[in-house]
Formats: sequence, structure tokens, C-alpha cells
Amino acid sequence: MSTPDASTPDSYPSTPRTTATRSRERMTYDRELVHAVLDEGLLCHVGFVVDDAPVVLPQLHVRVGEVLYLHGSTGARALRTAARDGLPVCVTVTLVDGVVLARSAFHHSINYRSVVVQGRAELVSDPAEKSAALTALVDGVVAGRSAGVRGPSVKELAATAVLRLPLVEVSAKVRRGDPKDDEEDLDAPYWAGVVPLTVQPGPPQPSADLTPGLAVPDHVATWRPGA
Amino acid sequence: MSTPDASTPDSYPSTPRTTATRSRERMTYDRELVHAVLDEGLLCHVGFVVDDAPVVLPQLHVRVGEVLYLHGSTGARALRTAARDGLPVCVTVTLVDGVVLARSAFHHSINYRSVVVQGRAELVSDPAEKSAALTALVDGVVAGRSAGVRGPSVKELAATAVLRLPLVEVSAKVRRGDPKDDEEDLDAPYWAGVVPLTVQPGPPQPSADLTPGLAVPDHVATWRPGA
Repeated sequence: MSTPDASTPDSYPSTPRTTATRSRERMTYDRELVHAVLDEGLLCHVGFVVDDAPVVLPQLHVRVGEVLYLHGSTGARALRTAARDGLPVCVTVTLVDGVVLARSAFHHSINYRSVVVQGRAELVSDPAEKSAALTALVDGVVAGRSAGVRGPSVKELAATAVLRLPLVEVSAKVRRGDPKDDEEDLDAPYWAGVVPLTVQPGPPQPSADLTPGLAVPDHVATWRPGA
Repeated sequence: MSTPDASTPDSYPSTPRTTATRSRERMTYDRELVHAVLDEGLLCHVGFVVDDAPVVLPQLHVRVGEVLYLHGSTGARALRTAARDGLPVCVTVTLVDGVVLARSAFHHSINYRSVVVQGRAELVSDPAEKSAALTALVDGVVAGRSAGVRGPSVKELAATAVLRLPLVEVSAKVRRGDPKDDEEDLDAPYWAGVVPLTVQPGPPQPSADLTPGLAVPDHVATWRPGA
């Protein structure tokens, strides 16, 4: 890998493997946009290599500054590997914003924002960093939640593995707006446009074994994904 | 890899690499469930290996019987590789069904359904299969759409690559229902339950260059993800 272009406060550096070979106009390295996508995404897809073959699994993640933390059980094979040497990973978070309906089959698409982070994930061994990361993971799912639950015990902390992936080699890809039909199709008698998509929370459903009389707290009642 | 357990009409075989090392109770090989998740998911995350490092990218997919088709540009590096030798991939589709709020930080979770397909993706060269796959891809996003658009030209077909991945080595993982707190936390004064999540379509937004008077067709007006 050659030296990346210098990063700036506003953007990540582009490197050979974060430079797209197609749809270049959709690529961005904008730090604020990258952070927003990572923060809005409830889960990521983590790719790693096992016996020369790719494996992709959904995982919870949270961003703290310029670090992405990933959560898992200490029993997981990938995490045992990471404990030894660090684990080369590709972490991808994708938000689907709409379905793009063109006049031609060829130009159908999806409006989306996705972020790809490449690097070597390392097991967090420092207890204070691990505890802070787990608190951030809970609050990353529902803001304010960690203050309204029982915190982790020593035994639970030991049973949980947290991986740390610095945000260094990072890129984003975004498609927005109308379909881009060919000029000669614009008068075709087919409807074209976008159906926007959002992730909507339904009414909170109390656990069957919940102590009667416990009301839904504000941090749950007002929660929306990405808020 | 050892011989997989025999598949049945109702389920995929389990193989060493589709057998979880943890959370085994969440694993399933049920064919109907796998199909439902693949069909409801608007996009997948495709993992492959480039220079020994994992890469994970979002892609459109569609299932036709026991084959998963993936869509891409012929310019993409991975697809050029697939054209030569077939490309070892891991394709993962994840649907998020809810946020699971427990009384303890440790037992917070996500309700989800995910499917992992492993295998070797091959470029579709037969023109009839390719054309059928592209039609299925359009209808896989919005059912009935392919009949209301201009079909692909010879040039467009040539510019599109379709990969074929047979559904052979397939597993699913599902978490449903209430949080599973420890017995001694059940009386803690913290609300516990699930906030369900669904992907909701908003009102269709006509393209800025749409011919005036063209109404939103039924297949768009009534569309919902997974329908």
C-alpha cells in the first residue's frame, strides 16, 4: 500500500484501496458524513478472512471520536484470532434511503449512504477503555440508556470482547436524488421517481416479566434510530 | 471441509463453516425462513478477499429459486476476478426487527434475522439467464416493475455483470422476543422490553423531469419492502 494522501480535519485520506474504480462521483471522504452514517447505523457488517475465505457477520458497533468499537462474545473464533495478532477487517455500514425507479430497467437503483472502514481490529484489554466502550455501545443503540440499567459486572465484562478499529482508512459512498435516465427515455410513458424509506420505531412492547407499574421511560418513548 | 449433513426439502445442510461456535440456539437452516429473509432484504453485503484482506460492499441481490443473483458493473475489480475463476464470496442479508432493552447493560441486544450464504460466485454468461436475472432484480426491488419500464438494450446488458451464487452453504440466525435478563435482575426498577422497527416507505416523489400528468402506478403506490 502506498502512502495515503494526507488527511485533513474535514476528510479522511484516500488510499489505493479506498479509491473506487467505478462510480467515483459517489465517493466521499467527508469526516462529518462518515460519522453521521456510522452513528445512525444500528449495526454494521464485519468482514474477515477465515481459511482464505471471506466471512461477513452483522455486529453492533459504536463510534467514539475516531475509533470504532465492535462488540462480541469472547467465544467467537474471530475474536480469539484478534486477541493474538489483531484481525484484518472491513467494516461496512449501509443506510438505505430510498428506491430509485427509472424509466429504464438499467437505471433502477437505491439511494443509500454507506461507509467502509478497513484496518486491523485489536482486542481492547484496558479495563477502563473496555468499560467505557460498552457504555457507549448501549448508549449508541438508545441514547441515555446506560444511566437507566444495571451496569456490567466483573464477570460480564470478562465474558464480553470489545474490538477497537481506528478510523484511518475510511471511505463513504452516497447516492441521492432522482433517477438518471438516458435523454432519449425522458419522454417514455413510464413513471419515474424515488420512494423514500425510513426506519420507524413502533410502540415499545414491555417484557412479559416486567414488574407491573413500571412506565416506559422518556429515553425509550422518544427514541428514534440515529437520534 | 468435511461432507455436509444431507439437505432436505425443508432445510439446508449444516457444514463446519455454517455451524455457529456460539449462540447455537439462534441458528437455523430452515429453507422457508432463509428465502423470506433474502426476499425481504433490499440489499446484501458481499464479502470477498483482495490481496489477503477482506472487502465488504453493499449490493443489490435477488433470489430465483435456489440461486442468488448479484448485480454489478463489469468495471468492478471483483467481477473481473469472478469472470476468470469464480469468486469466493460470503453474502449476508440482515433485517433489523427491533431493539431489545434489558434491565442490565450486558443483555441489551437487537432482534434480527440474518442469512449468510457462502460459496463461489460465477459470472452469468448465458444471455437468456442474464436477461431473466436482471428482470428478477428489478422486480425484486419493486414487484411488477419490470413490466412498466423500458427493458435493457444489448449495450446495457453488455455493461452489466450478473453473478450467480447457488444456495448450497447457507445458514440463518434469528433473535426474537423479550430481553433475557438474569433472574436476580427481574425486580430491578428498570423498564425492559422491545422497541419494534420496520422499514416504512414514504410518499413516492416524482422525478423533477417527469412528463407532467403521469400518475404514480399501482405497483409503486402499493409497494412495501418485502411485499
